[in-house]
Amino acid sequence: MVRKTIDISCDMGEGFGPWQLGSTNDEQLMTLISSANIATGFHAGDPNLMDLSIRRALGNNVALGAHPGFRDLQGFGRRRVEASAEEMVNDIVYQIGAIREFARLHGASLQHVKPHGALYMALAADEAASTVFVNTMRRIAPDTFIYCMGASATYRIAAEQGHPVVREFYADREYDTTGKIVFTRKPDDYNPKKAADRVLRACLEGKVRPIDGEDIDVGFESICVHSDTPGSVELLVAIRETLTANGIEIAPPSAATARAADQAPPR
Amino acid sequence: MVRKTIDISCDMGEGFGPWQLGSTNDEQLMTLISSANIATGFHAGDPNLMDLSIRRALGNNVALGAHPGFRDLQGFGRRRVEASAEEMVNDIVYQIGAIREFARLHGASLQHVKPHGALYMALAADEAASTVFVNTMRRIAPDTFIYCMGASATYRIAAEQGHPVVREFYADREYDTTGKIVFTRKPDDYNPKKAADRVLRACLEGKVRPIDGEDIDVGFESICVHSDTPGSVELLVAIRETLTANGIEIAPPSAATARAADQAPPR
Amino acid sequence: MVRKTIDISCDMGEGFGPWQLGSTNDEQLMTLISSANIATGFHAGDPNLMDLSIRRALGNNVALGAHPGFRDLQGFGRRRVEASAEEMVNDIVYQIGAIREFARLHGASLQHVKPHGALYMALAADEAASTVFVNTMRRIAPDTFIYCMGASATYRIAAEQGHPVVREFYADREYDTTGKIVFTRKPDDYNPKKAADRVLRACLEGKVRPIDGEDIDVGFESICVHSDTPGSVELLVAIRETLTANGIEIAPPSAATARAADQAPPR
Amino acid sequence: MVRKTIDISCDMGEGFGPWQLGSTNDEQLMTLISSANIATGFHAGDPNLMDLSIRRALGNNVALGAHPGFRDLQGFGRRRVEASAEEMVNDIVYQIGAIREFARLHGASLQHVKPHGALYMALAADEAASTVFVNTMRRIAPDTFIYCMGASATYRIAAEQGHPVVREFYADREYDTTGKIVFTRKPDDYNPKKAADRVLRACLEGKVRPIDGEDIDVGFESICVHSDTPGSVELLVAIRETLTANGIEIAPPSAATARAADQAPPR
Repeated sequence: MVRKTIDISCDMGEGFGPWQLGSTNDEQLMTLISSANIATGFHAGDPNLMDLSIRRALGNNVALGAHPGFRDLQGFGRRRVEASAEEMVNDIVYQIGAIREFARLHGASLQHVKPHGALYMALAADEAASTVFVNTMRRIAPDTFIYCMGASATYRIAAEQGHPVVREFYADREYDTTGKIVFTRKPDDYNPKKAADRVLRACLEGKVRPIDGEDIDVGFESICVHSDTPGSVELLVAIRETLTANGIEIAPPSAATARAADQAPPR
Repeated sequence: MVRKTIDISCDMGEGFGPWQLGSTNDEQLMTLISSANIATGFHAGDPNLMDLSIRRALGNNVALGAHPGFRDLQGFGRRRVEASAEEMVNDIVYQIGAIREFARLHGASLQHVKPHGALYMALAADEAASTVFVNTMRRIAPDTFIYCMGASATYRIAAEQGHPVVREFYADREYDTTGKIVFTRKPDDYNPKKAADRVLRACLEGKVRPIDGEDIDVGFESICVHSDTPGSVELLVAIRETLTANGIEIAPPSAATARAADQAPPR
Repeated sequence: MVRKTIDISCDMGEGFGPWQLGSTNDEQLMTLISSANIATGFHAGDPNLMDLSIRRALGNNVALGAHPGFRDLQGFGRRRVEASAEEMVNDIVYQIGAIREFARLHGASLQHVKPHGALYMALAADEAASTVFVNTMRRIAPDTFIYCMGASATYRIAAEQGHPVVREFYADREYDTTGKIVFTRKPDDYNPKKAADRVLRACLEGKVRPIDGEDIDVGFESICVHSDTPGSVELLVAIRETLTANGIEIAPPSAATARAADQAPPR
Repeated sequence: MVRKTIDISCDMGEGFGPWQLGSTNDEQLMTLISSANIATGFHAGDPNLMDLSIRRALGNNVALGAHPGFRDLQGFGRRRVEASAEEMVNDIVYQIGAIREFARLHGASLQHVKPHGALYMALAADEAASTVFVNTMRRIAPDTFIYCMGASATYRIAAEQGHPVVREFYADREYDTTGKIVFTRKPDDYNPKKAADRVLRACLEGKVRPIDGEDIDVGFESICVHSDTPGSVELLVAIRETLTANGIEIAPPSAATARAADQAPPR
């Protein structure tokens, strides 16, 4: 079946004081996406930038997501930090609360939580930690989507528990035949046309060509582009145009939920 | 008029990872107070300790407060950090959200917010910053008490705006004739009996003897003892016993609010 | 008298892990300067980048300087941190040692120390702190130049004590009639031709036109360009060409010292 | 053969601003040891405390050591941080330089370097990292002892390269039959008399009884007690008395080197 709507998310607000990483293009990127993963202060992000990012997202009708990471500015959250499942999840709870307060300040609420970098990967691989994470989400944010890879303990457990969950497809990364993401940094990764065609095919056919073999199946509800990928703006423009030209609407998962609620029979 | 109930608060959770400051006695202190000012990560506190402190508070029927500070672990939040009013308040919003999320995780809510150290003093002296702070509290937490000094811009503005506010009396600090707190570190500061008698008199007569002159008037709804004051446990035991023996009940301000709500005529 | 040689310095290595501030152009900037002020970890800089910056400097025959700041990554060392003179100088000692060790690792030594941002300004205005700083430098680095403003307590005290000292002229900032630096961010600030002519005149005539009145005298031995000034590369190219075309040689202060030592009569 | 002299070291200066870990007893501990491992700022320690610790050490005739750790205040350097060999060693170089500068400020020099916690263990297990470490030490500090476990890549490589190296015996930890240190936290660990007898036997017979089997051989030149071990002062007093009563002198390894130099035949 052809997918009719898809979400596009970007990591936003990845600065710290005057420091910038992907955040230099945020203003433009915010006009091209449907969901924002906003850095919440541990690997990047500070209260002022979080506030600004939320105002930017709301101004562009972009859904709000928390993007918590390990407490590791120097490694930008891409290094694993030794921690128990409880410690990892406490870090996430802290950061979710912080951004939720800014959302509340602006009369908005949180659509999703997407852990960052090494924390995303640590959860993906760790059944016990994903269990604590999903159970905690069910207590503090039962309607808030968890973004994760399809091939992850996080997805499996969220699905089992009936917690709202969104699988991601990475537009600026390659896959291998096991479905794992491979960071190749080959020139082709950044060819907007090729990347957009690859995304389109994944949306229409549910297939992607891995770097080391035959087509694999991919299931997903959201497309992710990293704001610090070189040419991220051009890449997003190409993806939007290609998808729209092929009848696929860009919309956040909360829109579908809202629509479903509207169409639900009266109780 | 004789005051019938009074609140006692302590700064709680002032550790960081394995580091301890006042936090070594938290378990015992928590049995002696009615409200806890829980450190929220910038000057002290980390997500694991915040979670533990909230569980301890709830187990002792102690009301929960956020204790946000400047981002200054090295200076324990006692050094002023240059920041605009908006930056200071964004730091506070971030920290309030963080602890609120742990409160929600445990099915509880936040009774109050008490800024820490240099941030408390910066707000007290700064009308513009207190205005941004109070206005922001009215948006994100209209029923949450602000704890502050009676002689402060924070109190004046909160009162003007009709935001719930609690004035503090410091049991382990001296006052001068202008009503300002003086940190003397004299041996007498830590004599539990003398300190308790001083608190009792302040409660009954609304007066305290400053270090440099005649009695001054003090108005307050909460008594503060610092957890890192030497002998803080003995001091709190003495204060509790003295107050209770004199017919003064120890209770958090939220109890009074709740009672008033109970006694309110049906709408 | 016409000055025959002048030093040009830039702040280098102002990154942190993957974070960048001025540091994106370091490789190119290093070919255009005679002295490098290398960030030493508190406001910017980390051990890996310090090592890289020293290798880059040595590869371009650029003299090495320590660029210590306040411990304030979020504020990039541009916010004053409350500290006693001893605390400020201990922070400097720590950072000087750190970079000296990397210099030693590469068989090199430190030419100069230039405090950064708010620390530079705090010392400039504080006689007591500058005294502790200069006295400490005399003990740990008696032959290492201090870089500072001519109109500063730091310069006056270093000169009185006979400690090697270099006064700076800011090519990318304006002056007012009191000789103080003014950060205008006017478009003209970044016109390479105009800035280079202003520097040339300052070198030849010892005069600069302030923003608010008649010419003032400026005495200096080094020209500073900030690596994070927009167009810093073009600005430096213009300055170098203009100075060289007018017979002024670009060389670090240590070269003059070395030359003087070579020409000294045998003892 | 009976050992005539032995070194005793403690980790010193493990505070940070007003925060304390083992550092509360430093003043007393410093009178009981021959070598100090002074925390250098990444896992604990700050410039002011480093300065104070060096003055305390010199006042007690205690030899100075650098105690560098991973950049992890929250985990007190006891969590592994992902880093390449070069990154780990750059962190060490930075911290060695920092403390060397304070040593220089007080006219002293560094006797040894002992990495802390997870960094000590990471090097012990990692041949490549130990090789970079030892080679770097040979360039920046060829006469400075490396402290490590006997059963470690660090020891093997330092010995092969002819770099001065000292093996440690842990007085407040248990061993297993493979010679690995075991952190049991059993009450007996902290019995000063038993611990002192165990140390004495290790000095005299070169043997220790592991927790899980028959005696193993231990070779070492230094005894380590952690300043944050409960009862560390009593433990050190008992060890000193027991060793001295049995004719074993407490002295740092540099004393032996100095003595050997004195007794060397004239060149």
